[in-house]
Amino acid sequence: MDYIFSNKISSLQPSAIREILKATSDPSIIPLAAGNPAPDAFPVDEVREIAGEILAKKPIDALQYGVSEGYQPLRDTILKWMKSHENIGRDFDNVIIMSGATQVMDLVTKVLCNEGDTVICEEPSFIGSLNCFRSYGCKLRGVPVESDGMDVDALEEVLKSTPNSKFIYTIPNFQNPSGATMSLEKRKRLYSLAKQYGVIILEDNPYGDLRVAGEKIPTIKSMDDEGIVIYAGSFSKILAPGLRVAYCVAHQNILAKMTVGKQAADVHTPCLNQMIVYEWFKKYDVDAHIAKIQAIYKKKLDLMCDCIDRELGSFVEYVRPKGGLFIWCKLPDNVNMLDFVKRAVEKKVAVVPGNAFLMDDTDSTQYIRLNFSTPSDEGIINGVKALGEVAKEYIK
Amino acid sequence: MDYIFSNKISSLQPSAIREILKATSDPSIIPLAAGNPAPDAFPVDEVREIAGEILAKKPIDALQYGVSEGYQPLRDTILKWMKSHENIGRDFDNVIIMSGATQVMDLVTKVLCNEGDTVICEEPSFIGSLNCFRSYGCKLRGVPVESDGMDVDALEEVLKSTPNSKFIYTIPNFQNPSGATMSLEKRKRLYSLAKQYGVIILEDNPYGDLRVAGEKIPTIKSMDDEGIVIYAGSFSKILAPGLRVAYCVAHQNILAKMTVGKQAADVHTPCLNQMIVYEWFKKYDVDAHIAKIQAIYKKKLDLMCDCIDRELGSFVEYVRPKGGLFIWCKLPDNVNMLDFVKRAVEKKVAVVPGNAFLMDDTDSTQYIRLNFSTPSDEGIINGVKALGEVAKEYIK
Repeated sequence: MDYIFSNKISSLQPSAIREILKATSDPSIIPLAAGNPAPDAFPVDEVREIAGEILAKKPIDALQYGVSEGYQPLRDTILKWMKSHENIGRDFDNVIIMSGATQVMDLVTKVLCNEGDTVICEEPSFIGSLNCFRSYGCKLRGVPVESDGMDVDALEEVLKSTPNSKFIYTIPNFQNPSGATMSLEKRKRLYSLAKQYGVIILEDNPYGDLRVAGEKIPTIKSMDDEGIVIYAGSFSKILAPGLRVAYCVAHQNILAKMTVGKQAADVHTPCLNQMIVYEWFKKYDVDAHIAKIQAIYKKKLDLMCDCIDRELGSFVEYVRPKGGLFIWCKLPDNVNMLDFVKRAVEKKVAVVPGNAFLMDDTDSTQYIRLNFSTPSDEGIINGVKALGEVAKEYIK
Repeated sequence: MDYIFSNKISSLQPSAIREILKATSDPSIIPLAAGNPAPDAFPVDEVREIAGEILAKKPIDALQYGVSEGYQPLRDTILKWMKSHENIGRDFDNVIIMSGATQVMDLVTKVLCNEGDTVICEEPSFIGSLNCFRSYGCKLRGVPVESDGMDVDALEEVLKSTPNSKFIYTIPNFQNPSGATMSLEKRKRLYSLAKQYGVIILEDNPYGDLRVAGEKIPTIKSMDDEGIVIYAGSFSKILAPGLRVAYCVAHQNILAKMTVGKQAADVHTPCLNQMIVYEWFKKYDVDAHIAKIQAIYKKKLDLMCDCIDRELGSFVEYVRPKGGLFIWCKLPDNVNMLDFVKRAVEKKVAVVPGNAFLMDDTDSTQYIRLNFSTPSDEGIINGVKALGEVAKEYIK
């Protein structure tokens, strides 16, 4: 049978990153293409202890159906934590538990967008979210990312010229892939533009707690007096991604629609997993854990930057990020970026070609994305060294 | 701000069942409205032991990101099991792991349907699936369910008159809510009609292993030489729903698109949960467990039928199901069904009004759905007794 797929899905390609990851499941390849948290950042013993206790003391709660909004004690915990940790939450706000932050993007798009509507994104931006928006037949309009975040003047031009814009998608902290962090001034301007043009902001903050330098900057959601910011938070980077527990803080009227969407999408996030996160907050010092993993990431980021400066210093340009998981490197103008990436794979190093993060991935770019959280320290050293060898082939 | 929601979502209401369940979270209400598996059917000790071992021996596999298709050892196990257990699986078929069977409905609809396309459903049918189809802007066409399953002559009329039908949704075993099981003859006819009209079949089989009487009937997927049947299976009823692990067996070309959809929806099903199911298959005798829970459900079904016959025998009509979780009861013509349901809640018993399962839930019906798996035996006895008291108010 020749299958006829929906318009919104037929044009969608598998995520370039995940395909690269699958191609490089070969353990001899050094994984600078991934976005996995560092395994030594997982609180393994704590999770094992907690899971055992839950399944001993409250097994039926963990194994039975739950409500779509999420496990109430966890919701209460997150609301309280968001208030103290990020100054997030007005009377009109609430929280629902999501199966990973990608589900926030999924349900926000489903709830707000008809096919053909426009989503305004930083360009470059996280391919997983871009594919999610594409999977609902949305058009993407890119706004360039500068070293201090989205070009807000360009944003205003896009808002003026795109009347069917439904929301602005931003990763203000240590943006994926650029590593850029949006300045406070730009956050304020972004908020006031969204208000002026009646457009929602979808603030995705998976990396916010992975800051390794500089001062914390207030979230856009913390400025939200009007209920126009939808905030996506996740435990994938600070606890463990394999649990697939994330959350969305937004105006309760938006969450009500997203809850209906969640009922129809996966009914609810697994109870056991939600309870593990809840008990982790209850039993352990989450702030201390975050400080610990920040130290891990600082070491790895510093190491990768040192390696790049040594092996690729005269070849690539990059802005040192203040946190997150990625370094966004620009190759010289005379180098064919895709050719460079292929040669890197031949040298057993996987990196992500930068075009994967563009609104139109057939556009060309000189950038590649390097990840420092997945590889071991040895992998960082040898991986960047191998990239340096590839670079030499272009210099000679 | 006045939010403007997408067309597909704005008309969608919260699931009536889940809203009733929330309203009746009051523990003094007897829950004949739910669809929860019986808690004493959960292999609690086994899951606790397995989870402890996984988090001791393979914690990083359990806590790190996984691939969208699912945990490979579990996929292999399910393919083998489907072959031996249901005679399912041709060379062109494969399996992907889903976050509950509702995600199968979600991704099948997303992948196959444009807004305005038609999904053909048994009428009545499972509200969760109907809402999923609605959440993509699909039109629903109902085909009446008879005591031996879908009226296949009516189906042919619908296929003839509805050229943009994308798939036929069926629950052939112990259908929710009717309890009906489709005969082998009808399964064959359904398959050949789908083939003739070039329409996919979505076969949802969550209750197949909860048979308590009669002989097993081959699945429609087992007849599928053409790759036109998508099969949704779940561990929610035979293991535990709170884990949210299900699967989809279908032609690999369909699964490739669904995998792209899953990447954009929730990236992957939690690794820990998939590994729990895998180890459960590896370490324990799943067939023996299924036999054990069948005994539990037989006892509860028999008890509820006995109670209905005693308390409501002259009031309601029903066909005794051969398995599943539900009994579909018809009230006398002169009784206002919604009024009956309200009076039942006043007597502290929750049942689901049958209109919730119709294509257009503003249509009227005389049916209510009773569940016998969630309540305790005492709950079944007292719940049906209370319904008998409500009935008396109409008789006198």
